[in-house]
Amino acid sequence: MSGKIYIVGIGPGAYEKMTVEAVEAIKKSDIIIGYTVYVDLLKNTFPEKTFESTPMKQEIERCRLCFDYALNGKNVSLVCSGDAGVYGMASPMFQLKAENSEYSSVALCVIPGVTAATSGSAVLGAPLNHDFCIISLSDLLTPWEVIEKRLTAAIQGDFAIALYNPSSHKRKDYLKKACSIMLNAGADKNRATGFVENIGRNGTKAVVCTLSELMEKDVNMFTTVFIGNSQSEIIFSESNEPIILTKRGYRV
Amino acid sequence: MSGKIYIVGIGPGAYEKMTVEAVEAIKKSDIIIGYTVYVDLLKNTFPEKTFESTPMKQEIERCRLCFDYALNGKNVSLVCSGDAGVYGMASPMFQLKAENSEYSSVALCVIPGVTAATSGSAVLGAPLNHDFCIISLSDLLTPWEVIEKRLTAAIQGDFAIALYNPSSHKRKDYLKKACSIMLNAGADKNRATGFVENIGRNGTKAVVCTLSELMEKDVNMFTTVFIGNSQSEIIFSESNEPIILTKRGYRV
Repeated sequence: MSGKIYIVGIGPGAYEKMTVEAVEAIKKSDIIIGYTVYVDLLKNTFPEKTFESTPMKQEIERCRLCFDYALNGKNVSLVCSGDAGVYGMASPMFQLKAENSEYSSVALCVIPGVTAATSGSAVLGAPLNHDFCIISLSDLLTPWEVIEKRLTAAIQGDFAIALYNPSSHKRKDYLKKACSIMLNAGADKNRATGFVENIGRNGTKAVVCTLSELMEKDVNMFTTVFIGNSQSEIIFSESNEPIILTKRGYRV
Repeated sequence: MSGKIYIVGIGPGAYEKMTVEAVEAIKKSDIIIGYTVYVDLLKNTFPEKTFESTPMKQEIERCRLCFDYALNGKNVSLVCSGDAGVYGMASPMFQLKAENSEYSSVALCVIPGVTAATSGSAVLGAPLNHDFCIISLSDLLTPWEVIEKRLTAAIQGDFAIALYNPSSHKRKDYLKKACSIMLNAGADKNRATGFVENIGRNGTKAVVCTLSELMEKDVNMFTTVFIGNSQSEIIFSESNEPIILTKRGYRV
């Protein structure tokens, strides 16, 4: 009999930010499979479990590995950072299953998790507390013109925005390009913005600044960037740390 | 000495969909405060704790109640469904604190949770697995023209979309109006869409249909609606249940 595959959103990585059912799914799995960085985070939390990791850009091989284990009767957790359905592995898993009849006996169960838009928001105050979009700046699977169109539409619709994958070795200037597109689309240079590095892990770093200041910042691949809407404000908290406040409505 | 206030996203309501730190915050609080419906869900999970609830539309009174308890030395959990910073209480709490110097000794700690966009996605397959927006159809705090502008921008930017608060007693036809705006903005009538009622609770109901079919559906206030992007597809899972598949990129 085939095993079951849990497609598990583990949140930012820390045990306490996992959901109860994510912890349970990992505990009842025979093997836990994921991208090297997240598997390493989980090994410390679940030292008794068996892990297997595949490098970045080998997502489809990672999915096939899960199906192979499940066809051999193993229960598998395929772990994703954040949520399993936000740029996660839920989509390629359902697609592979639909396209490969040999996988049809394997049951898939998606376990949602806390995505970086909300775990990062918690660090910065309330930057996304009204309608918002999530846009990835990675053009690995998406043409840059689509990303540009979405950044422009997001500003035109006056959404608050969370930017995922704002940088990588090959894309050092993408955040700067994105800021420039948002300014051209009508965002004010003093728009409230910020970013969080290593959310919920050692070395969490939070910065609050204006959109024109954001343009000059260096961020890394473990950063989530936040852009307020036109009404968002930077205010100061008890410890004099600035936070981003996006109000719940226009008439509060 | 003042107590601490945890602003806790509890997810959809079921214990297993709470994060470990949300459970811990509730356990270490002297009192748990929230909207009646969510407090009732939690009473079953934490029968030993003390709860206080306030009705809908009394959010500011609810916030003040939390500060009053904290000023009296109590640790408080202010519970929000889903995530605390997605249409949640993080924003009014930080705002009240900034505007009232008597609250300055009270520390606020936001605990993120699983928002309905991702808990509902897990039920429907992978509807939001690329860039997406969340838009609330409630015009209680937001002028309808702003909502209309955002729906149009979301379609123009080809985002997948999660619609929160799609209906209420006074707004029975709002989903129909929203569908009509999206069609006018260029969405195809066969766009993959769906909705989930009572996510993670008894009586979960999931429906997958086209945009023109969605227009004729009756949904209630405990429903989250999902609109795929222009590339999303309806595919069939092992049990012949339809799911919504939004691919991770344009070149997979």
